[in-house]
Amino acid sequence: MPTPNTRLVTFLEHCRSRIDTELECRLAMSGNSSERLQQAMRYSVLGGGKRIRPALCMAAAAAVGQSPGSATVPACTLELIHAYSLIHDDLPAMDDDELRRGRATTHIAFDEATAILAGDALQAMAFGWLAEAPGLDDQIRLAMIRELASASGHLGMVGGQAIDLESVGKSLTIDQLETMHRHKTGALIAASVRIGALTAPEVGEEQLAALTIYSQTLGLAFQVQDDLLDIEGDTTVIGKPQGSDLARSKPTYPSLLGTAGARDYLSQLLDSALSSLEGFGKEGDILRDMAGYVVARTH
Amino acid sequence: MPTPNTRLVTFLEHCRSRIDTELECRLAMSGNSSERLQQAMRYSVLGGGKRIRPALCMAAAAAVGQSPGSATVPACTLELIHAYSLIHDDLPAMDDDELRRGRATTHIAFDEATAILAGDALQAMAFGWLAEAPGLDDQIRLAMIRELASASGHLGMVGGQAIDLESVGKSLTIDQLETMHRHKTGALIAASVRIGALTAPEVGEEQLAALTIYSQTLGLAFQVQDDLLDIEGDTTVIGKPQGSDLARSKPTYPSLLGTAGARDYLSQLLDSALSSLEGFGKEGDILRDMAGYVVARTH
Repeated sequence: MPTPNTRLVTFLEHCRSRIDTELECRLAMSGNSSERLQQAMRYSVLGGGKRIRPALCMAAAAAVGQSPGSATVPACTLELIHAYSLIHDDLPAMDDDELRRGRATTHIAFDEATAILAGDALQAMAFGWLAEAPGLDDQIRLAMIRELASASGHLGMVGGQAIDLESVGKSLTIDQLETMHRHKTGALIAASVRIGALTAPEVGEEQLAALTIYSQTLGLAFQVQDDLLDIEGDTTVIGKPQGSDLARSKPTYPSLLGTAGARDYLSQLLDSALSSLEGFGKEGDILRDMAGYVVARTH
Repeated sequence: MPTPNTRLVTFLEHCRSRIDTELECRLAMSGNSSERLQQAMRYSVLGGGKRIRPALCMAAAAAVGQSPGSATVPACTLELIHAYSLIHDDLPAMDDDELRRGRATTHIAFDEATAILAGDALQAMAFGWLAEAPGLDDQIRLAMIRELASASGHLGMVGGQAIDLESVGKSLTIDQLETMHRHKTGALIAASVRIGALTAPEVGEEQLAALTIYSQTLGLAFQVQDDLLDIEGDTTVIGKPQGSDLARSKPTYPSLLGTAGARDYLSQLLDSALSSLEGFGKEGDILRDMAGYVVARTH
């Protein structure tokens, strides 16, 4: 498998550092709220993570000719939504996971009520930050809010989680599996790219459409690779018990297509993602690198 | 106790009808999401309720010279946030309530996972609706989003729920009780009034400040009356088991001030709320009526 090249490593490191600093600063403790709640929010958001969504957001800003840094705050809001969704997905009533990124999930480290509330507060925070994201026109802020609301609500991420829960123990067709993932993980990944592109006041419909195809394809690739890692990775690297999807009989790409079939599909998705970027010059290079990285990652 | 006068009854009926119609229409089932999730969202939002927050929002619009109808969509978003907060507050890990407004709470009528997700989706929906609220300038939409995010997040409603959970079984001072309520219920009530006032493009700082005092005072009055109803009302009228706060040893105004003391305090709050409206002419009459209604309500 190819290792991410130096350009991408530098970019990812730059994004992660910038995002972590911004999140740390903005999530400073306030005397005017519950200390335990705020600690749970910080625990969930600042507990590491690859910051792939923020990086995609900043890479998309670069692809449309903006400075990646101009997307810093919008990129942070994607991480807030991602963190909140992980907290809630891990709850006993949902996936009932005790381990995430190699450490206790939020409801284990704190308690269930605090975990639910921390997720709720992070969601509100994301929209609040977008509404005052620095350096962006009002029109752009609103377009980003619409994008985030749509991607994270019942027609997006939350809808996908509901479909996922309903499908446990059922046999799904590949189309049904794809529909679930397009909602559950794909919508927020697509929003990450589109929100990054929206930093350009004059981003064209054609560019936005191409980036949408790129991001949707990438989102599926991300999921196929996740499924493959679940059966092939080991707990210390992927941060959750290996085979955990299989154990709760969740349908996956390898279970429907076989491991070799899932690998082939992943490779097709990578090709499609790269094709969709044909209209972009070297500004799109980081997005190209990101696609290669997503399918090659080992955790 | 005074009964709400005809003017107020007409206004409340008008608001409720308008809000219910708008919510019903906007919450129409979509083929592109989980049916069960959407049913749970509709069950929670369309299951009656007095629509006090929307009415306050529309009354505040009237107070600053706008048509109450211009605040319809913003008013609906307050109801979405209120509904989501009730769903999550009722969860087994939180207040563990099985009855709300005289019928099964969402996690009882559906299941816990669906209830968590329905709440999550309703929150996203609220911000999405505000971002495209018809007839309002971009600047106003953003101001409303900031208001809602701040009032519903860790410095507002969610923070209050966290403080509330931490205070079960503890003895609180009256100041600590007040801090909790200012966050838990007060922040969203204040936001309802402020968001309504923001429909006026040129609403003055002075007017906004007066309405803020009005709404904060009203929010406290609402809570004191709620506490009184909890010990004095009966289940069939208030829709939850009578004495339920007492049963789980939650501190309340009557438990700290005595019933008579709580009644006195309620009356002082009503006076303060009315005084804060002195700068408003007859446009503020509905807000004045609302204050009287809140302290006189029996459920």
